[in-house]
Parts: sequence; C-alpha cells; structure tokens
Amino acid sequence: MAEEQPKVEAAQEGGEQEQVIDPWSVSGGADGRIDYNKLLEQFGCSKLTEDLVARVEKLTGKPAHPFLKRGIFFAHRDLQEILDCYEKGIPFYLYTGRGPSSEALHLGHLVPFMFTKYLQDAFGAPLVIQLTDDEKSLWRGLDIDEARRLARENAKDIIACGFDVSKTFIFSDFEFVGGAFYRNIIRIQRCVTMNQVRGIFGFSMEDNIGKIAFPAVQAAPSFPDCFPHMFGTRKDIRCLIPCAIDQDPYFRMTRDVAPRIGHLKPALIESKFFPALQGESGKMSASDANSAIFVNDTPAQIKDKINKYAFSGGGATVEEHRAKGANLAVDVPWKYLNFFMEDDAKLGRIGEEYGSGRMLTGEIKKELITVLTDMVSRHQRARAQVTEEVVDAFMAVRPMNVV
Amino acid sequence: MAEEQPKVEAAQEGGEQEQVIDPWSVSGGADGRIDYNKLLEQFGCSKLTEDLVARVEKLTGKPAHPFLKRGIFFAHRDLQEILDCYEKGIPFYLYTGRGPSSEALHLGHLVPFMFTKYLQDAFGAPLVIQLTDDEKSLWRGLDIDEARRLARENAKDIIACGFDVSKTFIFSDFEFVGGAFYRNIIRIQRCVTMNQVRGIFGFSMEDNIGKIAFPAVQAAPSFPDCFPHMFGTRKDIRCLIPCAIDQDPYFRMTRDVAPRIGHLKPALIESKFFPALQGESGKMSASDANSAIFVNDTPAQIKDKINKYAFSGGGATVEEHRAKGANLAVDVPWKYLNFFMEDDAKLGRIGEEYGSGRMLTGEIKKELITVLTDMVSRHQRARAQVTEEVVDAFMAVRPMNVV
Repeated sequence: MAEEQPKVEAAQEGGEQEQVIDPWSVSGGADGRIDYNKLLEQFGCSKLTEDLVARVEKLTGKPAHPFLKRGIFFAHRDLQEILDCYEKGIPFYLYTGRGPSSEALHLGHLVPFMFTKYLQDAFGAPLVIQLTDDEKSLWRGLDIDEARRLARENAKDIIACGFDVSKTFIFSDFEFVGGAFYRNIIRIQRCVTMNQVRGIFGFSMEDNIGKIAFPAVQAAPSFPDCFPHMFGTRKDIRCLIPCAIDQDPYFRMTRDVAPRIGHLKPALIESKFFPALQGESGKMSASDANSAIFVNDTPAQIKDKINKYAFSGGGATVEEHRAKGANLAVDVPWKYLNFFMEDDAKLGRIGEEYGSGRMLTGEIKKELITVLTDMVSRHQRARAQVTEEVVDAFMAVRPMNVV
Repeated sequence: MAEEQPKVEAAQEGGEQEQVIDPWSVSGGADGRIDYNKLLEQFGCSKLTEDLVARVEKLTGKPAHPFLKRGIFFAHRDLQEILDCYEKGIPFYLYTGRGPSSEALHLGHLVPFMFTKYLQDAFGAPLVIQLTDDEKSLWRGLDIDEARRLARENAKDIIACGFDVSKTFIFSDFEFVGGAFYRNIIRIQRCVTMNQVRGIFGFSMEDNIGKIAFPAVQAAPSFPDCFPHMFGTRKDIRCLIPCAIDQDPYFRMTRDVAPRIGHLKPALIESKFFPALQGESGKMSASDANSAIFVNDTPAQIKDKINKYAFSGGGATVEEHRAKGANLAVDVPWKYLNFFMEDDAKLGRIGEEYGSGRMLTGEIKKELITVLTDMVSRHQRARAQVTEEVVDAFMAVRPMNVV
C-alpha cells in the first residue's frame, strides 16, 4: 500500500483549483481543504451512515469505535454484504497494509491499524497485512535490503497495536511473493520504462500490464542470486544462455540493466530458426499438425508428413533435376538433415549427390525419414522413463552442490 | 521464454518488405527468407567464428556439436569471456527455457535443449531451465492451471533430452516465483491494460514497468486463495479492507477485475486523512520531523511540537477568542482529539467550551498533549515487547485454523 496518510499539497492561492486525490498525493480544492462529499461522488463509494454504524454495534454487541462514531471512517463499499455474512455466520477476512518507507511511524500511520484491530476484535475475523516493500523500492528507489529491513521494523510497530497472532498473517512482498527471484525481478523493472519496452518489444497502450512487466521475469534468471539453493548469494558466476536469435531483445535489455544493478552481463549463444516443413517462409505451429514433426508422432506420420509436405528444392521433373541439381538453400529435407544427421561425412556426400542432381528428392526424403524416425522413437522411449517422481526431483528447490 | 521456434510469417509477394524478428513473430524479407547477417548487424550480436568453435573443441576436449560446426548456432555475445572463465576454472552456469504452450513439442523445440545438453556435458556446467507458464497465460490467455499442467508435461520432454539431475534445476514461474499469490497477480494483470492504469493512476510512458504492473500486487490479497495456509483454496470468503480513501483507486480496479477472474469483490471501509500538524493543507512527511507526531517521540518532543506547530483555529487574541470562539473546522488540536480521545462526553464538553471561546487554545493543546503522551508511551511499551521471535511468529507461513 502507498502511504495511508499521503502528503497534502498546499493549494495554490486563489484560482479554481480542483482537488486531486490518488494513492501518491492529495491536494485540496481552492481553499486548501478536502471536500469529502465530492470525493464520494467522484470515486463512487457509499457514505457510511449512522444506521450502518448502529447495525455494526448491534451485530458485534460492542460499542462502535470512535473512528466510526465520529465519521473518521466515513465511506464504504459493500459493507452491508459483509455484515450480512457475519449475521449468517459466513466467515470473512480483513486485509490492510503499509508501504514501509520510514523507520518510525507517525500517528497518521497508526489510524488504519488501530481501526483494524477494533474490527478484528469486534468480528473475530482473520487478518492479512501486506507490507509493500516492493512498492517503496519501485517508487522511492529504496535499496531492496533497506526496504525489507524497514518492513520488519514497521511490522514491530504494527504488532504493537495488539493484533491476535493466531488470526493475523503479516507478509512482506519481497519475502512472500517470491524471495530472491522476485527481488531481482523488481530490481530489473526499476531500470526499464514503458517507453523502453515499447521500443524493444513493440508493446502498446492496449497491452496488458503483465506483458509490459514480463521481460523482467525472463531477464531475472540471468543473475545467479535468483537461485540461492544453487549459488548462495554469489554474484560472480557468469551465465551463458543458449537460445534462438529471436530471444535476443530480452537479453539485450538484460545486458543493459545488469551493470546498473551490480550484476555481470549474461553471455549468449544464439541459433538460427528450425524451419517449418513448408520452408522458411511457412508457419510452424503446434495447432497445425502438418507444419512440423512432433515428438509424439508415429513412424507412419513422420513418413507421411515428410513425403507430402517437406518443401523440396529439387527440380520439377526428374530430367530437370538431373540436369540442374537441387537448390539446397531452400530444400527442407537438406536443412533438417543438417540439424539432425550426426555423421558429417555422410551428410557431406548427400549434399554433393543431391546438389548435383545424382540423388533424387525421394531418396533424400528417405534418408531423412530414417534419421527422424530413429530420433523420435529414442525420444519416446526416454520420455516413457520420466515419471512424476523424476519431474519432482528436477523441480525440487533443494541444496545443490554445483559450484 | 517465448517459442524458441517462432512462427515464420509468409512474406508479401514483391515489394520491399523488411524482415521483422522479435520474440513473438518472424517474417522474412522480400524473398520470404531470413538474412541472418543483416540480423547480426541489426541486433549487434557477434558472429560465431570457426576460430571460436575450434577453441571450444580444444578447451572441452570434445568434438563440437553439429549445431556448432554447421553454423546453426551462428551468433553469440561474450562467448570468449565464458571460455576464459572455463579456462581459468571459474564456474559459470547455463540458462535456457521454454514457454509451455502446447502438449507435445515439435522438433524445433528440441533444438535448444539438445544443444544445451551438449554444453552441460562438455563444460560440466550447472543449468537452470525456466518454464514461462506465466508468459503463456499472459499472451495466449491460457488458463493458469492448464499452463502449469503443460509446463509439467513439457518438463518431461525436456528431461528426456538427458540432463544431469545433479546439476539441473527446472522451474515453472507459477511455482517458483511465488505460488498462489503470484498466480493471482498474473490473473489480475491479464485483465488490465496500460491504458487503464494510465487512466486510473496517471502512469506515463516514462514510468518504470514495475510501477505499471504493481497495482496487481496490491490487488491480489483481496482474494482469499492467495493465502492457502489460511483459507485453503476457498474462493467464497469475502474480504473487507479498512484503508484511507486515497487507496480507493486500487480497489476500484480490483472490484472491476474480481468477477472476471471468478472472485468476489472485496468490500471497503474508508477513512478521512489524518491531518498534518500544520493543518489539512500542510504536508505530513516522515522527512519533516515537525509535520507530525511520531511513535518514537519523547514526551518533551510531543509537548513542544503541539505547542509550536499545531495549527490553531482559535482567535488571534484572547479578546477575539473569547468573543468569537474557535473555528473547529480548521483547528488541529480539536481534529486530533477527535481521532484519539476516547471519552465521548469529555470530547463533547471540550468542543462546546473551546468552540464558544470559554476554553483557550493553550488549554485544548494541554488536553491533547496529555492524550498523545499517554498513547505514545503505551505504544512504546508495547513495541518494546515485540522481539524478533514475535515478528517471526506473525510472518511465518504456517497452518492457521482461522475459518
């Protein structure tokens, strides 16, 4: 949460100044004061009426808190429905929070917690308290460890308000959302603006905010301290990223950011694209079974797809092929063999024979079918050995003695 | 990671079409083909030369992988530096990944993993594999549980490539970044565009991408399944949020999103602002010690600040005050007493006496000093009892029998 008690900016003298209230600043109208009735209308909240306060007193059997009686808590949304739940014995919970930006709280900071304690006591409700150390580090540029320390210090002041430990969960975003990994995500996000991701990735105003933030999620594993169970807190271990060349924009961004957050730049080793059966300008897609060979295809499917769909650089007729040879630059069977045929000498001979026209399209396709059928069936046998327990073993966050 | 083998879009016939390559789509130039040399230049990567391949062979004592010899992995960044590390015995690690968008992989998907296995074997390097189930759910609208299931299924195909479990950590963002909480963050982010957060929060193109995404982090605790240790997977438990009115924009957004992701809207109960000592149009700030009373102030500081700085609505002279009374609407001691004096009857009498001019400014300030000194010293005693162990008890993710 932002400051519960935001800065009140001095109104300009005279003029028709409009009051502006958002989570980061509050400025009153022309007279420097805040018109709370106008705010209700602007925001679309409901007024907390005396009738509702009386209902709270009746249901809880306890006098209303002074903040309620005196109109300090003055607005609500759906409070009746919460009271309906309570009346019927249906549980609800309380959520409040604080952005830990300073060592010591002031009295204004205590207001929501004093009131929340009353609500917890009066309704016997469970409570979660979010400490947005991530927010303070995004907005105020607070060092991440400093923000975490302030969160813990502020937790002490909050606990001192008297919450019931059996019903209260206090969490810091940096600890509970995702530990070391999440902290690196935020460090990266701080260094990159919307303008920059628009430039790098082409994001627009219509893209969802998750997409806009996502490049930091892909960037983060480039830094070894995302993985304390593997590398402890070491920052001196370089990262090498094998990937296809289209991923380069992510890591260009990562490499720009790395020195700014005290990390080494990741290194990359980048591949060309594996072409679709229809050739480099075709579309290889999981939703089009004929565009690609899949690892769960049968030998019959492999044979059929290659014979039917693999784009050939061979001549249109046998005569033309014998005379001119195949165009290897566009031939898909030749390209696929370059990826997956292990025997260099044999591959060289095939290139020679097929390129010169002595080998026919049907013959190179046959070679490819043999290579791929073998490769896919080996993969299928290996995959059959991968049980759920094996997956768990790889995915367990466990101490790994790797460096 | 996005698709390692992206769609290759058909080039328009004729025309001067420029090739466009980014993590989500690939379209070739005028002839439908990809000019990899141009790409090197455009991206600023280095060409992977034969010399470098020879150095890899020499250092590892193993023949280069066919993908290296045949120029399939053709570009790099800082590969020399990684080889320098290896030569000196300095550890490095490998990072690759996959966006799990389909049940079965095709052969193109295997390329980076086959190559990464070779690198792991040749260099004996540790490896992390990121499964970006969050990305697939942001871009393709995949159901989150479906994306997690695909991540696990894809892990099986990846493991089948033969990685060394003692050196390989495979993780799904939805599991490793932050579990149930992170999953709700992404659910919310999917529903909110950059345009919307600009409208609600005033974000600009110059704001960092962490800020832009943050509203979802503050929204998420409104949903009970963020807290499996408290509420299991129940979605039927309502949330009530006590907060100051300036937080309303966050929760207006949250309430808009809630029904779209199968959640109940959170209810709110919202307060007015606690004024600065200088009054409603003053600035209350942790960096200005005289703008507020802090919970660690001494009795002498409290007395001094209230006497010196608390804005008074009393008359300019005693005579004027006796004649006209105090203006309670702007008087800070009166406002503060409304927050913190518990005795309603006494508060009523003070309002009467002070408002009519019978009570003087010094007298109401004296009342306030007593109330605040007592409140602050009670807080300080309570805080002194809050040990690190107590903080741990509140912040532990532990089974809580609360509903």
